[in-house]
Amino acid sequence: MTFGIVTLAIGYMLGILGLAMIVPALVDLAWGHPDWHSFALSALFTLFAAGTLVLASRGSSSSMSLRQGFILTVVSWLTASMFGALPFLFAELRIGFADSFFEAISGLTTTGSTVLSGLDTLPPGLLVWRSMLQWIGGVGIIVMGIVMLPFLRVGGMQLFRLESSDRSSEKVLPRPGQLAAWIGGIYVVLTLACSLLYFVFGMSGFDAINHAMTTVSTGGYSTHDASLGYFGSPAIYWTATLFMLLGALPFGIYIVTARRDSLALLRDTQVQGFLGLIAAVWLALTLWRIASGTEDWFSALTAVAVNTASVITTTGFATEDYTLWGSAAVGSFFMLTFLGGCAGSTSGGFKTYRLQIAFAMLVQSLRSTLTPHGVFPARYGGRKVESDVRESVAGFAMLYALTIAGLALVLSFIGLDFDTAVSGALTAVANVGPGIGSEIGPAGNFADLPDAAKWALSLGMLLGRLEIVTVLVLLTPESWRR
Amino acid sequence: MTFGIVTLAIGYMLGILGLAMIVPALVDLAWGHPDWHSFALSALFTLFAAGTLVLASRGSSSSMSLRQGFILTVVSWLTASMFGALPFLFAELRIGFADSFFEAISGLTTTGSTVLSGLDTLPPGLLVWRSMLQWIGGVGIIVMGIVMLPFLRVGGMQLFRLESSDRSSEKVLPRPGQLAAWIGGIYVVLTLACSLLYFVFGMSGFDAINHAMTTVSTGGYSTHDASLGYFGSPAIYWTATLFMLLGALPFGIYIVTARRDSLALLRDTQVQGFLGLIAAVWLALTLWRIASGTEDWFSALTAVAVNTASVITTTGFATEDYTLWGSAAVGSFFMLTFLGGCAGSTSGGFKTYRLQIAFAMLVQSLRSTLTPHGVFPARYGGRKVESDVRESVAGFAMLYALTIAGLALVLSFIGLDFDTAVSGALTAVANVGPGIGSEIGPAGNFADLPDAAKWALSLGMLLGRLEIVTVLVLLTPESWRR
Repeated sequence: MTFGIVTLAIGYMLGILGLAMIVPALVDLAWGHPDWHSFALSALFTLFAAGTLVLASRGSSSSMSLRQGFILTVVSWLTASMFGALPFLFAELRIGFADSFFEAISGLTTTGSTVLSGLDTLPPGLLVWRSMLQWIGGVGIIVMGIVMLPFLRVGGMQLFRLESSDRSSEKVLPRPGQLAAWIGGIYVVLTLACSLLYFVFGMSGFDAINHAMTTVSTGGYSTHDASLGYFGSPAIYWTATLFMLLGALPFGIYIVTARRDSLALLRDTQVQGFLGLIAAVWLALTLWRIASGTEDWFSALTAVAVNTASVITTTGFATEDYTLWGSAAVGSFFMLTFLGGCAGSTSGGFKTYRLQIAFAMLVQSLRSTLTPHGVFPARYGGRKVESDVRESVAGFAMLYALTIAGLALVLSFIGLDFDTAVSGALTAVANVGPGIGSEIGPAGNFADLPDAAKWALSLGMLLGRLEIVTVLVLLTPESWRR
Repeated sequence: MTFGIVTLAIGYMLGILGLAMIVPALVDLAWGHPDWHSFALSALFTLFAAGTLVLASRGSSSSMSLRQGFILTVVSWLTASMFGALPFLFAELRIGFADSFFEAISGLTTTGSTVLSGLDTLPPGLLVWRSMLQWIGGVGIIVMGIVMLPFLRVGGMQLFRLESSDRSSEKVLPRPGQLAAWIGGIYVVLTLACSLLYFVFGMSGFDAINHAMTTVSTGGYSTHDASLGYFGSPAIYWTATLFMLLGALPFGIYIVTARRDSLALLRDTQVQGFLGLIAAVWLALTLWRIASGTEDWFSALTAVAVNTASVITTTGFATEDYTLWGSAAVGSFFMLTFLGGCAGSTSGGFKTYRLQIAFAMLVQSLRSTLTPHGVFPARYGGRKVESDVRESVAGFAMLYALTIAGLALVLSFIGLDFDTAVSGALTAVANVGPGIGSEIGPAGNFADLPDAAKWALSLGMLLGRLEIVTVLVLLTPESWRR
């Protein structure tokens, strides 16, 4: 097997990343900050690597095997994180490579955990670069989730294969190139709309654009240490809530909605399940807040809505330290961290369709326990779920739990306390951002963790973002056989 | 459907429980403690209920449907816990019914969480009753795990069905009655051997018998607030370790070993996996203890061996507060709490064979992701695992996680802090005993929790003990159809 197609694709990807670095360089130049050197130098490195790869792999075959698909997916995210870390390393910040890599992979995977503090006084170029990493990572994950993962049949994603289903999107958009263009277009429109609303509701232009990029990508990086809480505005909180939810819905359905069927979004099983779950969480926690007697109902609902939406969509913004709301809030936010949004969106976590299939499987298995010869097929969206999807979803559920447990164990051996180890492992694998506890909770950050923990968490973010299976497949003997 | 067979079986079970209450009554009489009234009164109630049930259901059919099997299983454990709670309620202790029920179900499910403190000065009858509840629950769960659950096909237990497999025990012991007699015999022999060793190594006769009953049943109730730590003797710690492990091995294989094949135990896949896992845990944590520089290697190994064996076998003894050993210990003990021993033993938790099958399924699913048309059957003990077992194990894994998460959420809404809610839910469902944190950790107890939390934890213990599915099946429409 030759890897021409893989290196060519990575070359193009690095080319985009290198060109993107010119934006923060220009921002720092305009602001008169010397960090523009750092971005120029990083762009130089990245574009050089890109050019070398593209030149070396020209003329290679354009078809891709399953194995090449897995290798490309894993290596491209790793490479992007390594090169994306360069501006942090070269900047005046003077942070080491572990911190730089952590910040870059946390950005690209749209996790949003940060090792930087004093964001309010950070040079503008670095702030823009953090937002851009999340924005690029966000659209990357949508394209990967719609085009690549169903092809690789990862964790039940074959359910969303375009050619094998009669889902409406295939008839509308048969070709991957066209699909990517539509996704990009919708992504840009959402980001512009979000920026505009943020600006109208009182953010500066700079803050509005940065936060729009990290809202729609469900990333969660902010330009302020106080995160969204800096703005103290319900209008901004509800704008954030709306666009985080929009970022967590399946983009494939947006295309269908835009092109043919204006109600497709509301008819989608996954969207219904996701929004229903959110509504239930809002109701429960708002009632609990009101029962605790601390606020009027609108403030309670606003605070609950924006902070839970932030966690469920795996964004990671916070408007206040919700872990101070008491035991029910801590428990709820911890559980919410597992969930994630819809497949085919920018969000991470377990994903709504897997929850729905897992629940259908459980009901089916309980019913057939009592009536062994009865036929109770698990259904998703009115259709029977085939056994390969069932086994993929079940396998993913176990891998998800094992990965989080294993990472928590590693972190506790590195020396992190229980809350930090468990919630840190979870928030990394689910690509959420904040954990619980005083150190990495919504009011803290990841700066003071030992480097070993930062590397372990970086691996966790990568595993989570690539649906775990994609990475582990490369450890099987089959992937190294000629 | 008539329930004659169900009420008859419950009547007999209550009869045994009522007769058992005479033992602590005699003990209190001999010690001259007035609590003998409490036991006599409880025995009267229980034997009356038993007699009524048996008389009312005489002459009913002796065959049992699947639905009756589920109802019998759930109702018998609930009834036993209710009547088993009476002596606590009637005693001079003056604790309420929530506490009494919690103590009884924690005993019968061999969990070992307690709401009582000042054990060292408790009347001897109550101490004996606590030990007997665990001892009776322990043998009950073995018989249920070997005879009932495989018949009900719960959570992959059909793997151990006697009639459908060529496992050696079926040829040796075809009839359930004979099987139960053998199990009882082995159970008594193990308990006597354990008592004798405890006595030889310095326990009083009273302590030796009580602790032997709660060791072999992997229950964990002690006659001292300091648990096993009261004795401070490595010989006693290693005796406890040995018999907890023996209690967590599959009793069906003991019978084969005793009757025909003296090496059957060592050849059993589940036993190999379980002992291998324990060895790995001992090695890792002992090295970590030594690296922390606090002890010589033998003290370190002893402390690690007895406390980890206690958690993995779901016993719940402690010789010291191991949560003070540092972050790696807290993380490890939390993870160990999930695992459990072998199916067909007295221990709870996820169970070794499910870990093995889940792992085989994961490997198989990773391999077939890369080679969609390759054939990679998941294997257990050299044999292909059929799809109904695979789906049962996967379903159980998800139910186990959901039950623990749901219970933790309920506990956090009741007001328990994060560590207590999460580890309390886990320790209840896995039937282990101690959680982590200062309140319910190995140095604490459950007395100060609100009553609502005690009821929720009681339900968790019942769910865990009955492999969850057994209880939930009764919620499906099929179980109420005529």
